[in-house]
Amino acid sequence: MKLATLRTPLAIAALLAGSSAFVTAQANTDISTRWANITVETVADGLVRPWGIEFLPDGRMLVTELPGRIRIVGADGSVGEPLTGLPDITVRNQGGLLDVLLAPDFEQNQRIYLSYSEPQSAGSTITSTAVAYATLSDTALTDFTRVFSGEPKVEGGRHYGGRMTFSADNRYLFVGLGDRGHQMMQSQELDSHTGTLIRILPNGSIPSDNPFVNNPNAQPEIWSYGHRNIQGLDIEPSTGKVWAVEHGPQGGDELNQPQPEKNYGWPVITYGEEYGGGELRTSQGIKQEGLEQPIWHWTPSIAVSGMTFYTGEHIPQWQGNILAGALRGQEIARLEVHEGRVIHYEAIPMEYRVREVTQGPDGHIYVLTDERENAKILRLRATTKSQ
Amino acid sequence: MKLATLRTPLAIAALLAGSSAFVTAQANTDISTRWANITVETVADGLVRPWGIEFLPDGRMLVTELPGRIRIVGADGSVGEPLTGLPDITVRNQGGLLDVLLAPDFEQNQRIYLSYSEPQSAGSTITSTAVAYATLSDTALTDFTRVFSGEPKVEGGRHYGGRMTFSADNRYLFVGLGDRGHQMMQSQELDSHTGTLIRILPNGSIPSDNPFVNNPNAQPEIWSYGHRNIQGLDIEPSTGKVWAVEHGPQGGDELNQPQPEKNYGWPVITYGEEYGGGELRTSQGIKQEGLEQPIWHWTPSIAVSGMTFYTGEHIPQWQGNILAGALRGQEIARLEVHEGRVIHYEAIPMEYRVREVTQGPDGHIYVLTDERENAKILRLRATTKSQ
Repeated sequence: MKLATLRTPLAIAALLAGSSAFVTAQANTDISTRWANITVETVADGLVRPWGIEFLPDGRMLVTELPGRIRIVGADGSVGEPLTGLPDITVRNQGGLLDVLLAPDFEQNQRIYLSYSEPQSAGSTITSTAVAYATLSDTALTDFTRVFSGEPKVEGGRHYGGRMTFSADNRYLFVGLGDRGHQMMQSQELDSHTGTLIRILPNGSIPSDNPFVNNPNAQPEIWSYGHRNIQGLDIEPSTGKVWAVEHGPQGGDELNQPQPEKNYGWPVITYGEEYGGGELRTSQGIKQEGLEQPIWHWTPSIAVSGMTFYTGEHIPQWQGNILAGALRGQEIARLEVHEGRVIHYEAIPMEYRVREVTQGPDGHIYVLTDERENAKILRLRATTKSQ
Repeated sequence: MKLATLRTPLAIAALLAGSSAFVTAQANTDISTRWANITVETVADGLVRPWGIEFLPDGRMLVTELPGRIRIVGADGSVGEPLTGLPDITVRNQGGLLDVLLAPDFEQNQRIYLSYSEPQSAGSTITSTAVAYATLSDTALTDFTRVFSGEPKVEGGRHYGGRMTFSADNRYLFVGLGDRGHQMMQSQELDSHTGTLIRILPNGSIPSDNPFVNNPNAQPEIWSYGHRNIQGLDIEPSTGKVWAVEHGPQGGDELNQPQPEKNYGWPVITYGEEYGGGELRTSQGIKQEGLEQPIWHWTPSIAVSGMTFYTGEHIPQWQGNILAGALRGQEIARLEVHEGRVIHYEAIPMEYRVREVTQGPDGHIYVLTDERENAKILRLRATTKSQ
């Protein structure tokens, strides 16, 4: 941390108190877009591969770090020590602690949900994506309770998915999963959770109207399948529908509005290609009867990450738009959505690999950057252009 | 013309014969896109603001020039003298000779259709967009017969629309019109042709199932309204539906799939803004009940021009895609369309303002550039990338 970034007595006090990553909000970039002027402010830094962020009712932020830590970040940017109480998490490649979500009734029970890569046994590299809830205090998680564990657990550290959202009515928990890399063909099967979007009740049990509950050969949590690696998930406010973004290989990142029982085609159809070029060996082209087309695809790939529907008051023209981050693309993709289709795409250039995008209680956009050291929480303070 | 561009005895023979703008096909640019490698060849040059192009059954091309000329361009690139037999056309600003289209039964009757700015009386600057047919020979148009004349005729030389296409069953002629600039509010009214897409029979009479035929206060040719300036028009091969692109002001270029009776909102709603910035004085925002949203919009504006659906064999992945030219944007916008929505957008960079895009009988893409001198017909020879 540079002392030059310390602007207030409070910041200096925090430094003296030993906080290792305290930076006051600081304007450092202006971005001009069609509807908005955006000032990018660094809210906090010093994070390591942050993956999920959730605002607490008091304005503080819960932030996960992939290497298996969860911290509380103050509204003033102070980064707290890791909370205790996490279970064994296999931190390897893309595996680790993934997303965080407040329970709908958090204010009553201080319950949060976490997704993570769970080992078969302590220290094992045979893993799958799991979901648990726990009770949050200022320093610890307690009563850590697993509610979902993906089947099968396999070797390899790629494509865990992990993004979570509650349904519009807060009754169901959606969790986006991945194909675990070498298990890609399994995305076409219903007998595993590989490459699926699942829907469960908050206690982990199965909703009776899930599409495959009466199929004895299917995992009953499955909502939709044929996904590659879901990295962003949110509910469209105007419709209550769930939307998801997922990574393609080299090309073919997708935006989908997953419908129950539907097959989104991976790896049989894709707009992507093998890394390095050439047709994917499993691919039979870009379209096929019975397999869903994406609502939108990015080809070449931007490595799309977390997404949110903008509902803020600051930019009325953005209301209902999807804001999706991009790792490789170092942008926030703004997609104007109308009746289930994208009618405009604007790339908002960022100077960082973006891991997650969310909206704060102040209506501004908050972004997690993806660095392995000194990753940041950015606030995008967007104001309408004078008309 | 540079002698260096003359590669064949035929070209030199043509030069000696007095052809003023003969250039052999000549590779000069390579463009790499996701699915295609594209070689850009100059088929012909020496044109002045070419606007419409149509292939004759023998492989020659009919090309209009805005300043009121129509020429036959040989498959070898030889540019013929202007044909005789055109009527009085007011050439002013955006007005002049516009589009050309072969009649569906051209091989029987050598009939072509032309759109143009028609003066109230000879030499008048009070004009509207008109449509006529005529009989084509190698040197002349004869039996020039007007079948449509827009109402009202007004002063001003802007926003004539003019693009034409026949319906999938060849029974109807669609003509895209414009708001004539200062008449923009008239786009919301049905008592004029201003700012509408019209549908007529090839002899100019009114289809009995046109949406407003029973409205005594409406022009019966109107198919849809609320358009600003339709510059591209084509029929989607897989559905038979008509699609149109139109210019917005500064921003808000639109792709629409115009439905009968529907209002596409100009100038009440638009994604554009006043030239120089600021909200359009007539605008009430970007969405309003009862007014259609575009399928896609370009904001900021690329100044979208002619469009075609690609059906060639050379790039299977492009089949069904829209290729739309851009003047200001100097690109060909490739839009992947699926079930009435755009699922991907790729800008293919061109080094020219593009006026029209069409597909030749050889399955390659032909482009008219927009220069006031030495404008070109380009052939985009696209080949699939090795998979």
